[in-house]
Amino acid sequence: MQKQDSKPRIIALLSGPDRPGLVAKVAGWIYERGGNVFHADQHQDGQAGIFFQRVEWDSANDPKTEAAEFAAFANNELGMTTEVALSSDRPRVAIFVSKIEHCFHDTILRFKANELPGEIATVVSNHETLGNVTKQYGLPFHHVPVSAATKAEAEKRQIEIVKEAKADLVVMARYMQVLSDDFLKDVGCPVINIHHSFLPAFAGGKPYHQAYNRGVKIIGATAHYATADLDEGPIIAQDVSRVTHRHGPQDLVRRGKDLEKNVFAQAIRWHLEHRILVYNNKTVVFD
Amino acid sequence: MQKQDSKPRIIALLSGPDRPGLVAKVAGWIYERGGNVFHADQHQDGQAGIFFQRVEWDSANDPKTEAAEFAAFANNELGMTTEVALSSDRPRVAIFVSKIEHCFHDTILRFKANELPGEIATVVSNHETLGNVTKQYGLPFHHVPVSAATKAEAEKRQIEIVKEAKADLVVMARYMQVLSDDFLKDVGCPVINIHHSFLPAFAGGKPYHQAYNRGVKIIGATAHYATADLDEGPIIAQDVSRVTHRHGPQDLVRRGKDLEKNVFAQAIRWHLEHRILVYNNKTVVFD
Amino acid sequence: MQKQDSKPRIIALLSGPDRPGLVAKVAGWIYERGGNVFHADQHQDGQAGIFFQRVEWDSANDPKTEAAEFAAFANNELGMTTEVALSSDRPRVAIFVSKIEHCFHDTILRFKANELPGEIATVVSNHETLGNVTKQYGLPFHHVPVSAATKAEAEKRQIEIVKEAKADLVVMARYMQVLSDDFLKDVGCPVINIHHSFLPAFAGGKPYHQAYNRGVKIIGATAHYATADLDEGPIIAQDVSRVTHRHGPQDLVRRGKDLEKNVFAQAIRWHLEHRILVYNNKTVVFD
Amino acid sequence: MQKQDSKPRIIALLSGPDRPGLVAKVAGWIYERGGNVFHADQHQDGQAGIFFQRVEWDSANDPKTEAAEFAAFANNELGMTTEVALSSDRPRVAIFVSKIEHCFHDTILRFKANELPGEIATVVSNHETLGNVTKQYGLPFHHVPVSAATKAEAEKRQIEIVKEAKADLVVMARYMQVLSDDFLKDVGCPVINIHHSFLPAFAGGKPYHQAYNRGVKIIGATAHYATADLDEGPIIAQDVSRVTHRHGPQDLVRRGKDLEKNVFAQAIRWHLEHRILVYNNKTVVFD
Repeated sequence: MQKQDSKPRIIALLSGPDRPGLVAKVAGWIYERGGNVFHADQHQDGQAGIFFQRVEWDSANDPKTEAAEFAAFANNELGMTTEVALSSDRPRVAIFVSKIEHCFHDTILRFKANELPGEIATVVSNHETLGNVTKQYGLPFHHVPVSAATKAEAEKRQIEIVKEAKADLVVMARYMQVLSDDFLKDVGCPVINIHHSFLPAFAGGKPYHQAYNRGVKIIGATAHYATADLDEGPIIAQDVSRVTHRHGPQDLVRRGKDLEKNVFAQAIRWHLEHRILVYNNKTVVFD
Repeated sequence: MQKQDSKPRIIALLSGPDRPGLVAKVAGWIYERGGNVFHADQHQDGQAGIFFQRVEWDSANDPKTEAAEFAAFANNELGMTTEVALSSDRPRVAIFVSKIEHCFHDTILRFKANELPGEIATVVSNHETLGNVTKQYGLPFHHVPVSAATKAEAEKRQIEIVKEAKADLVVMARYMQVLSDDFLKDVGCPVINIHHSFLPAFAGGKPYHQAYNRGVKIIGATAHYATADLDEGPIIAQDVSRVTHRHGPQDLVRRGKDLEKNVFAQAIRWHLEHRILVYNNKTVVFD
Repeated sequence: MQKQDSKPRIIALLSGPDRPGLVAKVAGWIYERGGNVFHADQHQDGQAGIFFQRVEWDSANDPKTEAAEFAAFANNELGMTTEVALSSDRPRVAIFVSKIEHCFHDTILRFKANELPGEIATVVSNHETLGNVTKQYGLPFHHVPVSAATKAEAEKRQIEIVKEAKADLVVMARYMQVLSDDFLKDVGCPVINIHHSFLPAFAGGKPYHQAYNRGVKIIGATAHYATADLDEGPIIAQDVSRVTHRHGPQDLVRRGKDLEKNVFAQAIRWHLEHRILVYNNKTVVFD
Repeated sequence: MQKQDSKPRIIALLSGPDRPGLVAKVAGWIYERGGNVFHADQHQDGQAGIFFQRVEWDSANDPKTEAAEFAAFANNELGMTTEVALSSDRPRVAIFVSKIEHCFHDTILRFKANELPGEIATVVSNHETLGNVTKQYGLPFHHVPVSAATKAEAEKRQIEIVKEAKADLVVMARYMQVLSDDFLKDVGCPVINIHHSFLPAFAGGKPYHQAYNRGVKIIGATAHYATADLDEGPIIAQDVSRVTHRHGPQDLVRRGKDLEKNVFAQAIRWHLEHRILVYNNKTVVFD
């Protein structure tokens, strides 16, 4: 999955009504124009009658032009919804955070270590707590306080910041505010959230306390795309950890942090690598 | 955890209001009478103010008498709810099953291979399907048909069978009927159920289909004590397995079977080894 | 992954020197002849310069003829080593077993429950222990005693049995004899073994005792193709389980059994579903 | 497992020849002096004839004095090797690091977030790379270059630094030098190392490349106490992650980092919470 080539690869994500010959037509188009498929994976949901494909290839031509022409071909001739990208793209990510900082640090350090293929565009918080450390990391920090009375106003300001920062993705690194339906519609890019439970179990607040009270023997974390229905968006990644009667709520919180960091990073990586397609409130992840 | 001694060990499970000196008093009582503690584990729920202990020891005296005297001591002098057993006891287990047979075979083979410390007392089914193979295993089989109209009658008959078989435990090996509150009250022994989801997610019917529709990335199975609230009883053991968008409902069913077998066996083992204490609809498992 | 169609699908496994256009040519060949790709997955080992593909499709023509023609095409025109099969094939499996019976029962019950797509052709054992229960399962049983002196002779007899049974695969269900290089050459079909450790750790005998002595915190099981180098063959599947200082060697043995059963079944399933390609003593598994 | 009391708890770790009455004597001593056991766990290695115990209690008396008196009692009257500590102790930790920085950042951030009960005493590196960021964290940094010719000298300097920093523990956060037998003897405190494989598989250098070449389906990480035999010390914690044929060596490296961080932190936590006893090159971990 590594690529150190000087020339960028083209990555396309297609989805649409399934019909015979799609794989052949996509592969044929690429081959006839001198391209070389490096990776291709597809999936059919037989019940829903939908075809999904991710294809990654080296083109003999200018990658940017070729990508645009492929998109036109896939849209017009195959009837597919198509997203194309270059492996050299560096998507820009806006981090939303409150005071809880483990996902915040972990995400930033992964970007800095080139574990995540993109750039941090900006950091937005409803508290000032993490302002100084954000600046130490050399990143812009925007403090946008949020209260019930000012929420609509605050979200407008957040959207401005995201757009000025040219962010392609918003990630909620344990951001403790619910984003409104309007925000999600207007922000113009996907939003990934990390929920600190194994959804759909323990949606809502204080999930580790809920888990403790129910006496489960395994806890989890779930990364999902944010939707208007809180904690109901398409699930991208989940992980779990065993617990026993000895673990109190605070132990679950602590152990959950490790899950949250890894699951959140996994979801961000998959998104930035153009591996995720969403349909019927579910995800296809071409891992 | 193995014991090949000719002389049985005594195993006690205690629970009750926490207060200083309980560990010392239990250990002291055993030591003064020439016993040797082989294993001891305890737990305090600080919030609830409850003390739990499992202690396993070799007694210098007749184990049966000593066990009874310990129970009297723990009840009367320590104010503890106490259950005592000998490692040589072979608890008797009634298996309830319908037509789905993976947990049925797995459980029986584990008893036959001495992986589970007890005896199968009887097999009860609402279908005749598994009658012949039960007899091939050399086990008694009781067919008790259940319909909405006959359920109360059928449960009475089931209770008679359990009691005649002198069963100490009922295990529902994917038994597809809900046991009524009356059954649970009158059967006179604990009932362990295996639910084919990671509870509390996907309680109720067709949990693998629910999981498929929600698009989760991990499925699970849960063994719990049956209570009047369906799928709400104290959780004993859980296990999980990763799935992807490629897995349809039938794949989840197939993969779930492996989870169900292992989780069910784990719960039965822990129960038969006297490792489980129940309180506040949760379990303490002294593993 | 389920298929209930009356018409069988064609499944092809290809491998060979990588070059541009392989995906397009395979997909094009199928499409031009009216086939519909149901599933396709491929992999390139960039360093080794090898291309691997599994493709599964519905053909408009007679599947058997079409499969043969595809094989000719892939061999002659693409230069690929090719294996073709129909989804309706029921590969025949010979089970080798000694006295340890958990993998034996588990494998047979999975075949009987249609969890594994094939037929048990025969059971071969160096002991008589499992003869009666094999017959109860309605399966042929061959007792072939093996001693140092008679090993060569015994292996000849085993090969005869495998060939008479028309087995396509031999699986060693904790068969406690090493199969000689000659056996593996002459038996004419692949052999899958289950090793009771997380290879390459603890190769050789008594791996759970080795694991106990080394004080590892996780134990494992490994299914691999048998090769002349004992425990060194290509790994197909592995699974692990956590252990603590409380687990003695016998506990590791018991817990390992669950791993062995599941890992062994997983490897057999993948093989029978034509999902595995072997190269450089490793496996590509198109799961 | 949390304690917010103003008065510190006493924690004792005992080990020595097993004999009847040890549990009773320890519990009795504490109870007679007005102490209240908060947590106690013990283990017997029957084969080796060794008794292990961890006991944590609130004392009615001055904790420091009581701890010293308990140590004298356990040593002299019970013949146990005993280590006592107070829950208020803040053990001091020296971090050794080279250039690879994920464990370095992760460990420091966990200490800063109070996830690990202790203080970072100093950072020692054979490279200058992480000097600035160490100072940004507000921590002392010592650059001690190491070459084959200067190793003995360098280790003397390292020991001076550890002792001046009054460190109670050295942790090798992917420190890429082997510490000599002399260093381990003279440094005067335990040393925890993180090895980037599932030991004993793939000891030595480049373990992820070894794992890739062997074609394993699961990779791991192992935290252990450093001993003169490289990668052979007592294992404290291990964790694993599934991989497929799609993962190249660099993918294994990346995925392994998450394992290394969590396993390393787990081992450090257990050590700092006085949960680990070492014997026969193995660990007892009272989790």
